[in-house]
Amino acid sequence: MAAATITRKLPSLSGDLHHHQNPLEENPFFHPSNGFYITPSDVVLAQVVYDLSADSQPRVAYHRAGPRREILYEASAVKAAIVTCGGLCPGMNTVIRELVVGLWELYGVRQIYGIPAGYRGFYSMEPVELNPKLVHDWHKKGGTVLATSRGGFNLQKIVDAIQLNGYNQVYIIGGDGTLRGAVEIFKEVSRRKLEVGITGIPKTVDNDVGIIDRSFGFQTAVEMAQEAISAAHVEAQSAVNGIGLVKLMGRSTGHIALHSTLSNRDVDCCLIPEMSFYLEGKGGLFEFLEQRLKERGHAVLVVAEGAGQEMIPRSESQKQERDESGNAVFLDVGVWLKSALNEWWKREHPGELFTVKYIDPTYMIRAVPANATDNSYCTLLAHSAIHGVMAGYTGFVPGPINGNYAYIPLEEVAQTKNEVNTSDPKWAWVRSVANQPDFDKKF
Amino acid sequence: MAAATITRKLPSLSGDLHHHQNPLEENPFFHPSNGFYITPSDVVLAQVVYDLSADSQPRVAYHRAGPRREILYEASAVKAAIVTCGGLCPGMNTVIRELVVGLWELYGVRQIYGIPAGYRGFYSMEPVELNPKLVHDWHKKGGTVLATSRGGFNLQKIVDAIQLNGYNQVYIIGGDGTLRGAVEIFKEVSRRKLEVGITGIPKTVDNDVGIIDRSFGFQTAVEMAQEAISAAHVEAQSAVNGIGLVKLMGRSTGHIALHSTLSNRDVDCCLIPEMSFYLEGKGGLFEFLEQRLKERGHAVLVVAEGAGQEMIPRSESQKQERDESGNAVFLDVGVWLKSALNEWWKREHPGELFTVKYIDPTYMIRAVPANATDNSYCTLLAHSAIHGVMAGYTGFVPGPINGNYAYIPLEEVAQTKNEVNTSDPKWAWVRSVANQPDFDKKF
Amino acid sequence: MAAATITRKLPSLSGDLHHHQNPLEENPFFHPSNGFYITPSDVVLAQVVYDLSADSQPRVAYHRAGPRREILYEASAVKAAIVTCGGLCPGMNTVIRELVVGLWELYGVRQIYGIPAGYRGFYSMEPVELNPKLVHDWHKKGGTVLATSRGGFNLQKIVDAIQLNGYNQVYIIGGDGTLRGAVEIFKEVSRRKLEVGITGIPKTVDNDVGIIDRSFGFQTAVEMAQEAISAAHVEAQSAVNGIGLVKLMGRSTGHIALHSTLSNRDVDCCLIPEMSFYLEGKGGLFEFLEQRLKERGHAVLVVAEGAGQEMIPRSESQKQERDESGNAVFLDVGVWLKSALNEWWKREHPGELFTVKYIDPTYMIRAVPANATDNSYCTLLAHSAIHGVMAGYTGFVPGPINGNYAYIPLEEVAQTKNEVNTSDPKWAWVRSVANQPDFDKKF
Amino acid sequence: MAAATITRKLPSLSGDLHHHQNPLEENPFFHPSNGFYITPSDVVLAQVVYDLSADSQPRVAYHRAGPRREILYEASAVKAAIVTCGGLCPGMNTVIRELVVGLWELYGVRQIYGIPAGYRGFYSMEPVELNPKLVHDWHKKGGTVLATSRGGFNLQKIVDAIQLNGYNQVYIIGGDGTLRGAVEIFKEVSRRKLEVGITGIPKTVDNDVGIIDRSFGFQTAVEMAQEAISAAHVEAQSAVNGIGLVKLMGRSTGHIALHSTLSNRDVDCCLIPEMSFYLEGKGGLFEFLEQRLKERGHAVLVVAEGAGQEMIPRSESQKQERDESGNAVFLDVGVWLKSALNEWWKREHPGELFTVKYIDPTYMIRAVPANATDNSYCTLLAHSAIHGVMAGYTGFVPGPINGNYAYIPLEEVAQTKNEVNTSDPKWAWVRSVANQPDFDKKF
Repeated sequence: MAAATITRKLPSLSGDLHHHQNPLEENPFFHPSNGFYITPSDVVLAQVVYDLSADSQPRVAYHRAGPRREILYEASAVKAAIVTCGGLCPGMNTVIRELVVGLWELYGVRQIYGIPAGYRGFYSMEPVELNPKLVHDWHKKGGTVLATSRGGFNLQKIVDAIQLNGYNQVYIIGGDGTLRGAVEIFKEVSRRKLEVGITGIPKTVDNDVGIIDRSFGFQTAVEMAQEAISAAHVEAQSAVNGIGLVKLMGRSTGHIALHSTLSNRDVDCCLIPEMSFYLEGKGGLFEFLEQRLKERGHAVLVVAEGAGQEMIPRSESQKQERDESGNAVFLDVGVWLKSALNEWWKREHPGELFTVKYIDPTYMIRAVPANATDNSYCTLLAHSAIHGVMAGYTGFVPGPINGNYAYIPLEEVAQTKNEVNTSDPKWAWVRSVANQPDFDKKF
Repeated sequence: MAAATITRKLPSLSGDLHHHQNPLEENPFFHPSNGFYITPSDVVLAQVVYDLSADSQPRVAYHRAGPRREILYEASAVKAAIVTCGGLCPGMNTVIRELVVGLWELYGVRQIYGIPAGYRGFYSMEPVELNPKLVHDWHKKGGTVLATSRGGFNLQKIVDAIQLNGYNQVYIIGGDGTLRGAVEIFKEVSRRKLEVGITGIPKTVDNDVGIIDRSFGFQTAVEMAQEAISAAHVEAQSAVNGIGLVKLMGRSTGHIALHSTLSNRDVDCCLIPEMSFYLEGKGGLFEFLEQRLKERGHAVLVVAEGAGQEMIPRSESQKQERDESGNAVFLDVGVWLKSALNEWWKREHPGELFTVKYIDPTYMIRAVPANATDNSYCTLLAHSAIHGVMAGYTGFVPGPINGNYAYIPLEEVAQTKNEVNTSDPKWAWVRSVANQPDFDKKF
Repeated sequence: MAAATITRKLPSLSGDLHHHQNPLEENPFFHPSNGFYITPSDVVLAQVVYDLSADSQPRVAYHRAGPRREILYEASAVKAAIVTCGGLCPGMNTVIRELVVGLWELYGVRQIYGIPAGYRGFYSMEPVELNPKLVHDWHKKGGTVLATSRGGFNLQKIVDAIQLNGYNQVYIIGGDGTLRGAVEIFKEVSRRKLEVGITGIPKTVDNDVGIIDRSFGFQTAVEMAQEAISAAHVEAQSAVNGIGLVKLMGRSTGHIALHSTLSNRDVDCCLIPEMSFYLEGKGGLFEFLEQRLKERGHAVLVVAEGAGQEMIPRSESQKQERDESGNAVFLDVGVWLKSALNEWWKREHPGELFTVKYIDPTYMIRAVPANATDNSYCTLLAHSAIHGVMAGYTGFVPGPINGNYAYIPLEEVAQTKNEVNTSDPKWAWVRSVANQPDFDKKF
Repeated sequence: MAAATITRKLPSLSGDLHHHQNPLEENPFFHPSNGFYITPSDVVLAQVVYDLSADSQPRVAYHRAGPRREILYEASAVKAAIVTCGGLCPGMNTVIRELVVGLWELYGVRQIYGIPAGYRGFYSMEPVELNPKLVHDWHKKGGTVLATSRGGFNLQKIVDAIQLNGYNQVYIIGGDGTLRGAVEIFKEVSRRKLEVGITGIPKTVDNDVGIIDRSFGFQTAVEMAQEAISAAHVEAQSAVNGIGLVKLMGRSTGHIALHSTLSNRDVDCCLIPEMSFYLEGKGGLFEFLEQRLKERGHAVLVVAEGAGQEMIPRSESQKQERDESGNAVFLDVGVWLKSALNEWWKREHPGELFTVKYIDPTYMIRAVPANATDNSYCTLLAHSAIHGVMAGYTGFVPGPINGNYAYIPLEEVAQTKNEVNTSDPKWAWVRSVANQPDFDKKF
């Protein structure tokens, strides 16, 4: 094997800014040793699994994250803005805290502002001054102290506000919709020739953002989901023909459902958006459950919120309804499944005992503080973001690639989706554990 | 003050049975010391709070629970049945475990049977033989390994089964409906002149059984409810005009809601069945929330499932619907409140941000294993039950009264309800903490 | 039964102070209903368990805690001091928080000071001004934000400081030594004819204070101890001839060890200060463990820190050493037992595998935040204290008696010790569970 | 960049065995899709971070783990042995469980034996027959149900036992010493020309095994360590000049200490074996703590058990003492530091308050069940092991490399050590957070 390496280019601020020595150089605690600084030729490979017999593609690589010897900002000139958008995710407060502490202590920045309540906060609310003392224990709190909201993206108003307030670093923490907004902000800022570093920090408890290994908060969510599954298992076991049904987060991807099932050996069937399923007939869900109840007397089902959407009957008004992004609204697959299961049983086994206990732990999962693994992740992520912005990069996303922090063009991340690969051994393992049907009529 | 004491009489098995020395007498580990055994003159006072200026009533007392020097059963002749009925509650498995271990190790009983799936299990399923090795770690499991169900109460079939199988001790673990059934079993058994000791062990996560201090599992439930309230608080705080709404168990009483609110200082308003409330107008919930959102930007509501039932609009079919006991079915007060709140806001503040996050943690609360406090309680409770039955008492309930375990006539317990006393200082304290309205139009 | 009731007298401030209407009367949320206020004739009985055949003693009762219709202080004139002394205990911060919130919101007090670092803080440190906003989330923090220390009790300096600073309410949170100090302060304050209300709030994670049902933080400690015992059990089970040894808090009493053992069914032997034991010979600990290892391959020992102190060999210097109160210093019973066990095995079973894993979870137990049960307790306790002091009582302790909050003369509490009654059925149950020897050579 | 790839060769069983079709081919649930099977040309790159400007080395790759289309064993002929050696680590039971379930359900193996109590169990104890029902909930238990021990490695006796019992697959779960033993077993088995597949599964809570990303149980340990650090922080904060000192596992490497510090922002100083430190003088620990106490009033120290060993004074007997592997025994750095700190303070600040609270949570950390992340890891690890052995590989280790499971020659793993790279940015970040001295006198 011998193949060329292609490094993904990163946008950077134009050269009008002066180059400065990294203040870490003067830090009494660091003593940056040989090899401490990262250079533009330090890269992280994107692909690590190969079929050597069929390989000739060039290797894609990303610039490695970390401190640069030269930076583009003078500490006293930095005015940074931090904003959190979209739904809650464990670790948001840790990212904010570390951005503040890192900018302040490593680079000497003193003007750091929190934008309240998401994108709309740029143009409709007062920013909050942040400092290490204020954010001291935020990493122990769930949610986001800055508050968040969906929508409110008004490009011109936002960039006007950035310009007006003189922010020259903007840290945007949000999901795929937010990151697409960040791309537009980055472009508009460029159009206006503003020297503003823009970085997008992927926040998606569903883990549906591509290229990076996984998103922060995801491990905490999987951990918390165990409680709900265990409760469903207890409820199912304690009943006669008991079904425990747990709906987990995941609108377009089933990562939380998949990993929660893999971590917990009490799940009989895991339904995710990436795999279609059917209820009736041979190989269908009902047949499978019939069998499982006969063998064990109970069964546990985990369903990702985006699974089976196309099967849920919609009223006329639901057919018309669109969410803020113009997509058909999501219906509650758990409520639907619960009622479908009850109807099926009443039809097939009239008079026989049967119970479905449905648990929707969504808000109890996403509102908890990050666990140690995610706190560590968020810390390294925030510091990666700071080093990149200080070095003059913009329009980028920091994130772990094969275990190493790298910088990825924002636009590339915003266009990539991370779906469960149902032909991957992990999925096979889930099925082997559950002995669940693969709902594939072709067989 | 000087008042007579009246001790509540307990039914006991007729004298056809022979008296035996308590085998604890021969236990190598006990060496029952002076005062170890409980006699019929040992009592526990029911009332401990008095107004001395207005007191002349006789004092009610109950026989104290504990081992008697003489017992009515010979170990080899005992055939015990244990059954769990109704919904789940933390500690059910601990009670079962301790009944088995206590009967086996203290009294040498070797025939102990679990009746599966509630009352119907007596006449429709095979009993399960129980022993200390089998139940060894049950106290670490949530739910009930014996399984449970609602309904299935067929008096004649149950007593026939008791007679047919030769059970002479029956331990019935269940809530108020179950205990009323136990009274009927006790009476029918007496009518048939069967020498069968019947005891009812109150299991109600709602804590709605009277006379006893509190029911097992209740403390665990209050502990677990904190997680849901904290999550609701985080969701509310992280939003603009965010309301966190938590529905907690409690159909006719609000104990869990009340104690969860008292233990957790983030609740703004606690709604319980014992107190009516109203939404619109002066002093109503909406006005209160309007005010609270203005002051703090968010609010947390806790509502017991039985609160406000009379206010929820019912469809024609819901009006007809009756549950297994013939009562009007309960509607979901959380779902109704959420939608009422959204409508109110849209009407009063069109276009302004507002979010209600609704959490129903019911199954995640009731399916957990008992905590240490409840495990200890269940252990002492089960041993109290055993000592009472072995001594020949029947038709009774063991339970803590003012911190001491006592025996109470089953019929008395089955007729008493434990409601939150809204004129009690505890309730005043809840209101003082929340500064919540008292919804009392007369003021 | 017919017996007189004797109510324990409480000291109260002299009548120089004017009587005021309780401001709760004007509270928009309370609307004190009929029977809301507590009167001097409202009492709580101390004894609830009787042997009716042998009873003729008068009944002791205590004044019931709660708000009085008339109070002795005007809100604007109150200057309150709060101090925490001695070791950590879950719930200290909750008590402080509720004292502040209750004084502020119920009675309108605005001058509330925290004394830092225990008794010595009165005369050697600056007090901290407290208000509801500052203490808002203290009940979620372990330890004491005010800081604490042992010793530092200088009566004259403390009372001088009280006088100098004009404190007219002093809330002292501490253990038995601290309460004895509080008695002296109360007396000195009386001698100086200062109108200062003094209340002592018992803080003892060991639960060794008498008269009250139990002390705050105790339930949390028992809960946390389960983790250590479970770990010891796992270590023991995973080894060949494995002993898991856990030392729990309890210098003169074994309540935590006892209740932890009762709540957890994996303990083979529980050693407490109230019961002497011996190692060698028939009926000794080694014989018992020999037997248990043969049967099960492992064993779990729980030992209270004060157990077996008289058996531990002391060096000459240790014999001389005295703690701050002049008592012989405590030696580490866990370290000693571990080494004694290892020597015994090596002597009796040379070459055979054997492992003792010793866990001392003390600081991990006492530093956690209070659980829901204890938070609720601390809230009611603090409010009881406030109502009592505002009503003019002094030299008293608030606390639960048979489940009801009452006021007890401080001197009485300071002289009473709560020890484990080894002839109580609870202790019998512990032994029955463990089948442990009773170490009583007389048998 | 263009560089050749070198794939590390794996030993495999000689061709005397017949090739069989993978039974997954017939599994009703798998339907192995295109690309499901792994082929010998599927590899995982070892290195993913490059400096493109200085790179010309060939790339090392490892064979990817996963099911092969052809296997070397017939299910009915497999007799598998599983053994756990050394100290406890979260996840051991999950690995055992998954080995059993995977062999049984995926490959139809029915003869699976657990070797009790480590290496010595091969020749001195009865093996335990394992099946899916028996191991069903082992992944929820801490420790190892098979029991474990150190030492007992007798090569000839072990291989004799393997031969005698007819085991043809041996799964060895253990740390670096155990893996070196596994290498010898592998070699001896080869010498004897036995067709026995040997795989070593790295178990090291310290995470000190090289090449693989991290070892199982490590994340759980870091998670649990937070509790101890938080307790130490509370103790320190609640005292005057309070030091919280936590000793964490890590004899030759400081990974747990490092990651626990990174995940928790309350640590002031983290001491690990990879970095020497000193107490006295300029830039020493005492000076640092003096400063920190002055600024904050308290400080938290985390120390890995292997740190500072060379500084602890040894008695003559301690100098002689050697552990089972002939190394100098480890002394308790925590006990030594605590006493050194107390002496220092008494010397420098006689009469001033000062407290060191020392917590050693070792057994409470390592005895817990694996968390969800580690359970998932252990599941994939065990399945990787099975697939590799069934395919005929031997003398290998399965493990994650850059997030992908691969097979690594056992000998290579046994010779590699994973130490904290103190010139890595992670270490810099720890120091930046703590502002701790770098103890490097050269500066």
